Amino acid sequence: MTATSLGKKIALSFEPLDLRTLHPFGISYGTSADSHNFLVTLTHKDVVGYGEASPVEYHGESPETAAALLKAWSTTDILGDDPFAIAEVCRKMDKSIAGHTSVKAAIEMALHDICGKIANLPTYKMLGLSGLKQPITDFTIGIDSLEMIEKKTKEAVDAGYKVLKVKQGTSYDKDIIKSVRKMAKDLPIRVDANGAWTPKQAILMSEFLAENNVQFIEQPLSKYASVDDFKFVRERSPLPIYADESISRSHDVARFANAIDGVVVKLAKTGGLLEAIKVIQTARAHGMQIMFGCMLESSLGVTAAAHLSSLVDHLDLDGALLLSNDPFNGAKYDDGILKLTDLPGLGVTRI
Amino acid sequence: MTATSLGKKIALSFEPLDLRTLHPFGISYGTSADSHNFLVTLTHKDVVGYGEASPVEYHGESPETAAALLKAWSTTDILGDDPFAIAEVCRKMDKSIAGHTSVKAAIEMALHDICGKIANLPTYKMLGLSGLKQPITDFTIGIDSLEMIEKKTKEAVDAGYKVLKVKQGTSYDKDIIKSVRKMAKDLPIRVDANGAWTPKQAILMSEFLAENNVQFIEQPLSKYASVDDFKFVRERSPLPIYADESISRSHDVARFANAIDGVVVKLAKTGGLLEAIKVIQTARAHGMQIMFGCMLESSLGVTAAAHLSSLVDHLDLDGALLLSNDPFNGAKYDDGILKLTDLPGLGVTRI
Repeated sequence: MTATSLGKKIALSFEPLDLRTLHPFGISYGTSADSHNFLVTLTHKDVVGYGEASPVEYHGESPETAAALLKAWSTTDILGDDPFAIAEVCRKMDKSIAGHTSVKAAIEMALHDICGKIANLPTYKMLGLSGLKQPITDFTIGIDSLEMIEKKTKEAVDAGYKVLKVKQGTSYDKDIIKSVRKMAKDLPIRVDANGAWTPKQAILMSEFLAENNVQFIEQPLSKYASVDDFKFVRERSPLPIYADESISRSHDVARFANAIDGVVVKLAKTGGLLEAIKVIQTARAHGMQIMFGCMLESSLGVTAAAHLSSLVDHLDLDGALLLSNDPFNGAKYDDGILKLTDLPGLGVTRI
Repeated sequence: MTATSLGKKIALSFEPLDLRTLHPFGISYGTSADSHNFLVTLTHKDVVGYGEASPVEYHGESPETAAALLKAWSTTDILGDDPFAIAEVCRKMDKSIAGHTSVKAAIEMALHDICGKIANLPTYKMLGLSGLKQPITDFTIGIDSLEMIEKKTKEAVDAGYKVLKVKQGTSYDKDIIKSVRKMAKDLPIRVDANGAWTPKQAILMSEFLAENNVQFIEQPLSKYASVDDFKFVRERSPLPIYADESISRSHDVARFANAIDGVVVKLAKTGGLLEAIKVIQTARAHGMQIMFGCMLESSLGVTAAAHLSSLVDHLDLDGALLLSNDPFNGAKYDDGILKLTDLPGLGVTRI
């Protein structure tokens, strides 16, 4: 390293971003009331970029591993000195270690933030995506008692949410749907089993869900289920089958071609926006539908995703809507749409 | 249209760009000494962007159809008033008319040129592709008499070209290879049959070509050959099989999954850089190799392609090297590499 390149090196710092949910949030893997995320700050000369890591154990990351990796990378040359070398930094991170995609996503989105600020352009404009229409985002009803599900559904309907996503994976899945349908008779709903069902259960449930006017089923089978098992369910289900946990990157989309109807893309799984675009384009090439999702994330991570929202069919970017302590201003939920600001980069500011 | 948007509308003008080759250029479809391309100029406020259309009849375009479409679009609102709405303009052009991808590519690359100039960044930086390495570009030996092929090969070797691409599709294909190998004993070579062979001919030729140390075979079969015919050849050929004419867009890559080893992407086939990225990413997701090619194009069209060159395995961007009257300065061939300038946008200037 020379003295001149030292001065230009992109610096990485990070701090915990502890998020609390409005209600305890239940999915088939368990229930939690908080999420231990990280705020990643990259600095290039006088420009600061922000990113958010949202590690989850079921994708092989924990707050501890995220902190360890961020600490290690903060003392290496992996970020180089050129914020526009986004694909190259991704290549180096992938070469350095497999997985850990929420950490990679945080760094990658912070680079987009810096580049946009240097160019004085919002990230979606940098990518040529101005003027496209965004789908409506849904609001998620987590697993809970039937009484609480009715209450949460009523709150969501009263708050004006236009599409609901309902978590499944209990011994009373049909009753959950009935409770939601009781309070939201005509609202479009989609369900997410987070891998809780066997193939035969999934097929039986798909018939019940079709009768209850559900749009599609997300991840009916385990993330370890085979392509053939997904194909088996898809061929017998009246509803479209989407894969979430089974699909991280574009090569997964290629493997699942003809076995699913749609994919769920998330920055925390792809490791950033550029790889998310790859997943989206590969899925599109195969005629699949696409939903953009998120983890429990603040408006920082959700806003980064919203820059690509016009490329997909469905949005599930309600991570920040579920929080009681969102520390960022970014894309604002307005009548179903996540409105991006015209600020440069990701367009987020700390509250 | 309001008075304010009128003032900001992106204006389109075009003029013929008649290119002449150093040698008559022969491929299996025929031989020509010139190419009737078009220079497309888009103007947004005081920023000018350039694009090049290179229509070829075997992809359903002629100079006449290109001129007709450019004339029609120059008097419509299809370009809107936001140069960053690149994907949206592509959507509108595709909705307006199928095919005609060289015209669409010219408009799309001119939008990238304008956006880069507004942001004061080269296009590859806008796309996050700084710092990646580019493969070496090849030089094409067209179909000719054996005497001329020996002469052209010697010239190419003397000029320092590091990889040759050899056109096939004659009654003396093996002799062509022998003539090239006589003058270029150890240089890596790849061949392009431009669809001239039957499946059985392709398999026989693949064995001969493998013995002559050829890297891979491009488009052995007709563009109308089935996926199964490509699979039949691929399973029996010792050399990798690439598809060019058979692959225009990303859905073609998906259709040909498991039937080919590689794809040839060209802006004139995809209709621009964004769709070229889709083709590349879909091919990559399927583990295919990728070559970036071009038509007979000036340094304008070739330079636009060079901005994506770091995403692929092989480059065949010699269109401008084959010309005697290149009217643009852009990426410069330097010891095998097409060096991009650091000028904003595409980085091309008119001579």
